[in-house]
Amino acid sequence: MIVLHVFGLATSSNLIVLLSDVDGVYKSLPTLGNNPDVIATWMPHTQVSFGAKSNGGRGGMQAKIDAILRALHGDHNEDQHKSMIDAVVIANGMRSDSVLRIINGEEIGTLFVRWNVDDYRVNALSNNNTSATAKIDYKRVAQGAREGSRELQKLSLTVRRDILHEIANRLQREEKYIIEENKRDIEIAGKNNTNQQLVSRLKLNGTKIASLVDGIKSIADSPTDPLGRLIRKTELSDGLILEQVTAPIGVLLVIFESRPEVLPQVSALSIMSGNGLILKGGKEAIHSNKILHKIIIQSIQHVTKNTVQSDVIGLVESREGIQELLEHDEDIDLVIPRGSASLVSHIQKSTKIPVMGHSEGICHIYVHQDAKNILSIPIIIDSKTDYPSACNAAETLLINRNLINDGRAQEIINALRNAKVKLYAGPIAIKIWPDMPASKGFKEEYGDLGMTVEVVEDIDEAIRHINKYGSSHTDTIITHNPESAAQFLNQVDSACVFYNASTRFADGYRFGLGAEVGISTGRIHARGPVGIDGLLTSKWRLRSSIGHIVSDFSNGKRVYTHKNIPISPASKL
Amino acid sequence: MIVLHVFGLATSSNLIVLLSDVDGVYKSLPTLGNNPDVIATWMPHTQVSFGAKSNGGRGGMQAKIDAILRALHGDHNEDQHKSMIDAVVIANGMRSDSVLRIINGEEIGTLFVRWNVDDYRVNALSNNNTSATAKIDYKRVAQGAREGSRELQKLSLTVRRDILHEIANRLQREEKYIIEENKRDIEIAGKNNTNQQLVSRLKLNGTKIASLVDGIKSIADSPTDPLGRLIRKTELSDGLILEQVTAPIGVLLVIFESRPEVLPQVSALSIMSGNGLILKGGKEAIHSNKILHKIIIQSIQHVTKNTVQSDVIGLVESREGIQELLEHDEDIDLVIPRGSASLVSHIQKSTKIPVMGHSEGICHIYVHQDAKNILSIPIIIDSKTDYPSACNAAETLLINRNLINDGRAQEIINALRNAKVKLYAGPIAIKIWPDMPASKGFKEEYGDLGMTVEVVEDIDEAIRHINKYGSSHTDTIITHNPESAAQFLNQVDSACVFYNASTRFADGYRFGLGAEVGISTGRIHARGPVGIDGLLTSKWRLRSSIGHIVSDFSNGKRVYTHKNIPISPASKL
Repeated sequence: MIVLHVFGLATSSNLIVLLSDVDGVYKSLPTLGNNPDVIATWMPHTQVSFGAKSNGGRGGMQAKIDAILRALHGDHNEDQHKSMIDAVVIANGMRSDSVLRIINGEEIGTLFVRWNVDDYRVNALSNNNTSATAKIDYKRVAQGAREGSRELQKLSLTVRRDILHEIANRLQREEKYIIEENKRDIEIAGKNNTNQQLVSRLKLNGTKIASLVDGIKSIADSPTDPLGRLIRKTELSDGLILEQVTAPIGVLLVIFESRPEVLPQVSALSIMSGNGLILKGGKEAIHSNKILHKIIIQSIQHVTKNTVQSDVIGLVESREGIQELLEHDEDIDLVIPRGSASLVSHIQKSTKIPVMGHSEGICHIYVHQDAKNILSIPIIIDSKTDYPSACNAAETLLINRNLINDGRAQEIINALRNAKVKLYAGPIAIKIWPDMPASKGFKEEYGDLGMTVEVVEDIDEAIRHINKYGSSHTDTIITHNPESAAQFLNQVDSACVFYNASTRFADGYRFGLGAEVGISTGRIHARGPVGIDGLLTSKWRLRSSIGHIVSDFSNGKRVYTHKNIPISPASKL
Repeated sequence: MIVLHVFGLATSSNLIVLLSDVDGVYKSLPTLGNNPDVIATWMPHTQVSFGAKSNGGRGGMQAKIDAILRALHGDHNEDQHKSMIDAVVIANGMRSDSVLRIINGEEIGTLFVRWNVDDYRVNALSNNNTSATAKIDYKRVAQGAREGSRELQKLSLTVRRDILHEIANRLQREEKYIIEENKRDIEIAGKNNTNQQLVSRLKLNGTKIASLVDGIKSIADSPTDPLGRLIRKTELSDGLILEQVTAPIGVLLVIFESRPEVLPQVSALSIMSGNGLILKGGKEAIHSNKILHKIIIQSIQHVTKNTVQSDVIGLVESREGIQELLEHDEDIDLVIPRGSASLVSHIQKSTKIPVMGHSEGICHIYVHQDAKNILSIPIIIDSKTDYPSACNAAETLLINRNLINDGRAQEIINALRNAKVKLYAGPIAIKIWPDMPASKGFKEEYGDLGMTVEVVEDIDEAIRHINKYGSSHTDTIITHNPESAAQFLNQVDSACVFYNASTRFADGYRFGLGAEVGISTGRIHARGPVGIDGLLTSKWRLRSSIGHIVSDFSNGKRVYTHKNIPISPASKL
């Protein structure tokens, strides 16, 4: 066995390569005619069926693994941060190019990486074994995130940016191991006959990771600091200056399902905005979430030299945990459930903590009498068919009666049918198109190529219909008449109101908000697509040059001036 | 009896003066040696013990009253809006100056004013008789406020300003009747042995009404429209322009106790910001609240010629009503409980609707080592004694250890004792001042002249203490050292952080926010003192010049430009 200690890789970590006579650690015992897979990345929870100790050849592998783990972590967990070794690879020394291929980042042999105490803690958190979960102190998880948030807030913008770049780099560097872990989730999903749509949301690949990395870099490189931005400045009295500045909300609890890329996205937004974070991912993505979480914690601790505690971003896997966390309103400030309307509603009922999320997406298109079909048809088709299961897809088409008389309505119906849209008629429309099946009601969210069609007399009726039956998500008017458009934009009471544009534009990325926290159909705090601003609150800073007291104002010694002091758009304290 | 029809009063309402041989309607029968009070304002619920009909002289008064009510309201409620008559006064025609004095607004005789259907409805709402309350449809109350909100939003800024001026004028004009109704509440409170502090919060007088009128006028005259203010403008692509603008939240439920002046204040803020409103006042202020509510509804309907429905601002008096309203999260967007921390907490537990309010006010003062007592003492005294029961009064004094050694701490303690502050020592302070009673803990909110004193080693310990035990309300540092102040202002995680200023400045009026909605210790939506901005959300408006669709961006035909378009500070669409 040759031990090769490779320093100074591009990633600036220390790697040991153990050249052995096998390709790596096998998942099971190799036997004649059976060449088992090599484990690509060794995880603390990796289970391998080694041969009995007495079986010399295989028992040697167990000894190697123990030695490697000691090298990485020290004998005690407390020593782990002192270890100089970040990773060990066991590879086949009989192949001449092994070392070069490893240094080039190819996935050969078995990689052991350094796991933090946190990794073991996370494993404990997600362990479904009752005796293990009983030990988890969720109050402590929430308080840890609170303390972590306060540590984050002390960091300069530069350091917060560095953490994000470190995360982006590590995601790139460890892409193969991420995909490996993700494959385990996909395999389990396959065994459980999970539906294909969920699996496609679960799957990570090179393209998804590359776009994730780009997204995180763009958050890091956003030109202004979200924190400490001046919102308002007032002279209250001579020498007494009040400032309102942006500040982190504090601790966020984000609940998400399947899509593991949400984890690094939301983490990056939280770090940049100084918020502590508790993540509750779905069980179906447990392996993907764990490796992504590990990368983020390691990046934070690497850049801040452990001055920010690992608790700043917690990962919780069990459903019981969520129920308990929802009780800790003193340490969690905002819950963001990213999932179905029923999930959002369930969470709202279960907690005193404010909840940001979206209910149904019952989006409308109103085709005004002053709209040519060359304008209308592409917008309607795009709104319905571009991604029918999205919450910003259109569900209801309201057609002005004038379009019935001159044949434009029929042309629209034909175009929709050609695009495989399944139309359902409202009570008026069914008189015109008796062949259409009747709509089940105006609050129907199809989530597929279904669409309700109804005829309205005028714009007032259209606006009333949308305000009554819609979910205040996104509604669009198609018209060549700017006055009617203005009336629609003013009077439709929805988060997003559009004029001659597809409902599908209602999206944080398309709106230019950078990474999206989610879409809110609530009316307080944040509404519509939510970017990093949705993770901010404000604080008030009052500075006196002489020691002002209020009784001097009551007794007339001093007076309030309340002079507004103009601020430049990107003022920063 | 002379009937004098007086048109064209300053208030542009029509008044009938009925000159009779008595001073007005008496509260009870005048008998020899007993000259009962004249009822100043006749209310639908006014109870008078008239003589039997057979007793000619008094029966005539009942007939007059019936005639007056018919003149004001018509025979059927439906006719009431058509009545030309706004008010009738019965006064003594034997006195030569009666008419002039009435026109001059003096309170002589008995005034009858026109009551709307709504007044009767409100009476029904507040009726505690079970058979009456059973009929109230709270869903309808909430939906009425929603529809009213949409009607309000259609009004121009000028019309919304006119409504506020009309309210201010009517409050001034009807001051005496308001005070009369308020006296009934005070009387009942007296009978119920209500504590004096509550009574003083219940009481309205000329000064309070004058300052209420000023406040409403200043909301009306605020230079910019809170609605439709441009927050962000972005070119998403060539010809595709996105705007984020301010919009009303929708429907607010405001729960308040005693202080009836809250009702017109909050109503004025809601009208100006286009929000529907449901008010739940305390039973102890029922008469005051009713007359104030009536004045507001009449003002809205007068100015908008009934285009805004009276439901836009509802008044609910029963506790059962509140529980039911809290279920209607689809029609109520924000609950603002203005009361004790326990009320806020109770409401938060009872509803899915977001709640804005404040928990305890455990405010701290930290006296840094670089602070002379000539600066410190007045700030500490003011913070504690200016109004000890206010939530922004200081509860805990943290003293740097250096002040112990040089006698400054003792001087502060002496000054506080001279100001009648009752000091309680923390575990460290008790070693220095063994004569002080021990504090019950650092989370004690005294609400009176009690104050906890503790000694800390340095600013880091002070910050940790405040973040751990405080309620994130308001905390102040006293120091001559700007670096320490900056650290304190950055790291103390409270809504308001002050430097050499009394904690008592944490207040919407003092902050120059105009009328105050309340103080929020929550971290989302609004934080600290909340002005009209706290009643706003935003909406997104997207305008396409050519009919943009998202599939053109996926297939590369078009690209996102995401150009920020600078906006001037007070942009208005």
